[in-house]
Amino acid sequence: MATLKGAALVGQSGGPTAAINATLAGVIRGAFEEKDCITKLYGMRNGIEGFLGERTIDLTEFFSDASGNLDENKLEMLSHTPAAGLGSCRKKLPDPDADPAFFEKLIALFKKYDIRYFFYIGGNDSMDTVAKLTKYLKTTDYEMCAVGVPKTIDNDLAATDHAPGYGSAAKYIASTMQEIIRDCAVYTIPAVTIVEVMGRDAGWLTASAALPRIINGTAPDYIYLPEVPFNTEDFIRDVRAALDKHPNVVIAASEGIRFADGRYVGESSQSGAADVFGHKYLGGTGNTLESIVKDAFGCKVRAIELNLPQRCAAHLQSAADIEESKGVGRSAVRFAAEGASGVMATIQRVPGDVYQVAFEPMEIAGIANQVRDVPRNYINEAGNNVTDECLEYIKPLIQGETEPMFKDGLPVHLVL
Amino acid sequence: MATLKGAALVGQSGGPTAAINATLAGVIRGAFEEKDCITKLYGMRNGIEGFLGERTIDLTEFFSDASGNLDENKLEMLSHTPAAGLGSCRKKLPDPDADPAFFEKLIALFKKYDIRYFFYIGGNDSMDTVAKLTKYLKTTDYEMCAVGVPKTIDNDLAATDHAPGYGSAAKYIASTMQEIIRDCAVYTIPAVTIVEVMGRDAGWLTASAALPRIINGTAPDYIYLPEVPFNTEDFIRDVRAALDKHPNVVIAASEGIRFADGRYVGESSQSGAADVFGHKYLGGTGNTLESIVKDAFGCKVRAIELNLPQRCAAHLQSAADIEESKGVGRSAVRFAAEGASGVMATIQRVPGDVYQVAFEPMEIAGIANQVRDVPRNYINEAGNNVTDECLEYIKPLIQGETEPMFKDGLPVHLVL
Repeated sequence: MATLKGAALVGQSGGPTAAINATLAGVIRGAFEEKDCITKLYGMRNGIEGFLGERTIDLTEFFSDASGNLDENKLEMLSHTPAAGLGSCRKKLPDPDADPAFFEKLIALFKKYDIRYFFYIGGNDSMDTVAKLTKYLKTTDYEMCAVGVPKTIDNDLAATDHAPGYGSAAKYIASTMQEIIRDCAVYTIPAVTIVEVMGRDAGWLTASAALPRIINGTAPDYIYLPEVPFNTEDFIRDVRAALDKHPNVVIAASEGIRFADGRYVGESSQSGAADVFGHKYLGGTGNTLESIVKDAFGCKVRAIELNLPQRCAAHLQSAADIEESKGVGRSAVRFAAEGASGVMATIQRVPGDVYQVAFEPMEIAGIANQVRDVPRNYINEAGNNVTDECLEYIKPLIQGETEPMFKDGLPVHLVL
Repeated sequence: MATLKGAALVGQSGGPTAAINATLAGVIRGAFEEKDCITKLYGMRNGIEGFLGERTIDLTEFFSDASGNLDENKLEMLSHTPAAGLGSCRKKLPDPDADPAFFEKLIALFKKYDIRYFFYIGGNDSMDTVAKLTKYLKTTDYEMCAVGVPKTIDNDLAATDHAPGYGSAAKYIASTMQEIIRDCAVYTIPAVTIVEVMGRDAGWLTASAALPRIINGTAPDYIYLPEVPFNTEDFIRDVRAALDKHPNVVIAASEGIRFADGRYVGESSQSGAADVFGHKYLGGTGNTLESIVKDAFGCKVRAIELNLPQRCAAHLQSAADIEESKGVGRSAVRFAAEGASGVMATIQRVPGDVYQVAFEPMEIAGIANQVRDVPRNYINEAGNNVTDECLEYIKPLIQGETEPMFKDGLPVHLVL
């Protein structure tokens, strides 16, 4: 495709991460660098849903300083702001064949704003959006480039070595596990602490809880991932073995662990139980495991759900992740300026002893339908921990600390 | 009392904090400075309970470098390590009048190790230990100094302007609230997020969730403290008013909020409800409020319990808190070396426009029986938020960031 000239549109979609704004910062930098073809960069508020309501922000204007140059200070502040600065949505686009009218409306809006570049930052659903738009574009004569930019703390996107946002979440989880392990070590009475980590389908986040093991020897006793069917008897046997060794047992479990029959462990404590208001008790994985341990051992048990901070703790970003998140956003713009469309900008690990990455465009069709689980060889034979090989894969992604700005004792965030 | 010469003994007791090891570091520095009277510093493992079993560590040796000087590097590492490095216990000492034999045994152990100085770092129960030992010492002719050193994230200790450990917890809570508020702002559908903060009796920790308001204008919609009786109808009215204004409502509530009849709100969802194992569902305050909102509005609701990270997130310490925590530990040793006994080292705020503190010894008898609540004038009239005056009191305590060491992407902790 010949290089197009016109405006660009960028959106964020799906769940927030601590790095998704760094990727947006990369797209913004890219747009400033490619002014020959990108005349202006619009941000969609709340993703494609907001754009359909024409809710946009002129990012070129917002990030220009008095001389019209890129305001580096604002961009840096954006990189340390958690959660989607442009807002997000969870809209699934229809199939172009089934509902061409939807896409006709979209194209009409693109024409109205002279949009020739479309960048969508997100996970599988967002890549599905880019893939569907790409499919429709082939049936029209409106020329534009659509490029997907990955992010997901879950790290389950295909075609990329890892997903921007995962490294920061992994660093937060591993650091917090270390702190919880120290906290739990102060008493001498037997106690089991169960830490529930995000990850409905893939266990990458929970695996990161074991990272301290290869760095300084600290580690949870067990790691339970969705990739391995959960067995209550095996679990009780594991806990007994750990309690025989030391009084403070710490366990990390994915919210998404399932029994062999496919039922989520976290669902099992819902059945029958209801609170005083008659609501079903949404037990959660940690609470269910807490009940199992209490029942089997009668000892002190505590379930901790790491919850939202896993994906929004921007005060403890991984410098490697933030650099790559910026890089992948910037590369997406470069690929588009070079004429690529229907691709996702990916991170590829360069083979060799020293960790190094390259950003490469990959055909987007099909990416959305794949899920990248933790492979079996990254999990130990007993299915209750991850291997050192798994941790060596994750380790480079948490390296380095960023320097978020603070004002009066609190991190400074940029509100768009 | 004439200056005594002999060994010193230091212990940590009660719940962990992110700053209690900084206080220990202060005591260690103090002991190295007062070598004229302190011949050696022992640490009790797991507090007084461990000492009764003669489980000690020679801290003078552990923290000496090759030339016998204080190893500054190790001490700094200790200051950034969360949770009681020496271990903790929850032992309540008997009254000396009722059980003098207990204290005779203790004194015999002190004599065996030539202990002339006793430092106990902790909250109310630990100050009770020091007070009882002080009372008993008056009935014997064994000469020694007993000094209490405060710590509690709850900030409810009397006689001190604030307690070491509170500032770091407040900084973590306020920073995390900011991040959660940003995370919740990305979607446009009405949603209520309830953040449950520690504090069984005093609302200081929950109050700190409102800090961003006076710093950058970000704030939870409401703050509910244990100091104000909780009323379900008022709460529903509050939430409705907030939902009328904006879609993303964020609330911070103390785990210890109670109804007017004294029942904990978090207990109310226990009655009747049980999981599949027949265990009573320990609802928790956040989950109960979640049920109330779901029932009243049917909108998306999420309860987040900040849990242990509130007290052990040493990666985000307050520099002011860590400096003061060290200072109060060091001052405790100085007070003892100057002959003080039966006192707690306190932090006093020096009157004036610029925040400044002084460390002063205060008579320990009676301190343990007092609880310092959030005063009524720090709470708004409606009882659903804190005043700016309250936040101005807390603000100096969260100032500045420490620089914890990192190795391979994770904070470095010192294990004693």
